[in-house]
Amino acid sequence: MLAAARAEFAERGYDKASIRAIARGADVDPALVHHYYGPKEQIFAAAIATDFAPALEAPDVVQAGGPDALGERLTRFILGVWENPDTREQLLAIVRSAVANETAAAVFRDLVTTRLMTRIAGELDIPDPKLRSELAAAHLVGVAMLRYVIKVEPLASADLEQVIAMVAPAVQRHLAGDA
Amino acid sequence: MLAAARAEFAERGYDKASIRAIARGADVDPALVHHYYGPKEQIFAAAIATDFAPALEAPDVVQAGGPDALGERLTRFILGVWENPDTREQLLAIVRSAVANETAAAVFRDLVTTRLMTRIAGELDIPDPKLRSELAAAHLVGVAMLRYVIKVEPLASADLEQVIAMVAPAVQRHLAGDA
Repeated sequence: MLAAARAEFAERGYDKASIRAIARGADVDPALVHHYYGPKEQIFAAAIATDFAPALEAPDVVQAGGPDALGERLTRFILGVWENPDTREQLLAIVRSAVANETAAAVFRDLVTTRLMTRIAGELDIPDPKLRSELAAAHLVGVAMLRYVIKVEPLASADLEQVIAMVAPAVQRHLAGDA
Repeated sequence: MLAAARAEFAERGYDKASIRAIARGADVDPALVHHYYGPKEQIFAAAIATDFAPALEAPDVVQAGGPDALGERLTRFILGVWENPDTREQLLAIVRSAVANETAAAVFRDLVTTRLMTRIAGELDIPDPKLRSELAAAHLVGVAMLRYVIKVEPLASADLEQVIAMVAPAVQRHLAGDA
């Protein structure tokens, strides 16, 4: 059922996805989908928790080393997830649903807040750790949007190591609590 | 016709928008829409050139002062465009079409490249001016995504001046060509 839900949300977006189609894809009764997951937004929550799983390892990346190279580790990890065509398509499907629909945005926001930002902020010994880790994340989100989604040149074709070298210091400053 | 096209693309997205519906909205024959604008992607180009017009003033903002406070001027200007509910909806409609459809992304990319990034890069006396102005833009795009679209807290409710104060130095470093 989860695989059918992920496929349906990826193909049709949150708005257009139907529990009936998910049930058909899983070859079960629609009532069973509802029984297991509840309403559409809860099915979506379960689907994106799986699709977003690669990015959810970011807090482990933050923990796996000292604070000095944190910006570089996190930048390399997040851009690495986007470099992979399979995980890129999964993230892109989530972004499409979240920018198109307020409920999908709220479900994604809860996932990002509880499973990603709160955990990363908990590792930081700086003022305003949540706000600063969100600004660091914002930079990486924006680079991903322009490089992998809108594909603006020269950023889209720039060498990954050059991009990491130019972005990591800004991410590091946010996470270190610098001005 | 342009107003009808903007309304149709905003409401239904690039994929679903039809020339027939645009013609109906403008109370003209579909052949006339095609005669004036050509195929759908050219109508979309004309529509987003109007919807994206507020952001296209950014190069003037870059020019209107010295290089030292450039990051702060540009950050204040772009977040100001997003703070306005009307222009926010226009930008959001473009983002929705561009993340959902490759052709719409290409049309938006051309607009951003020729009317925004090339002009801003032309004002900068640094190495890799295009790449660096795109990284500065990426940071602002990401802040807009998390603050105004996904609405992650505390960033979504943070005081605008605090956000500008925390983001502008990173934008400034990109535009000044610092590491």
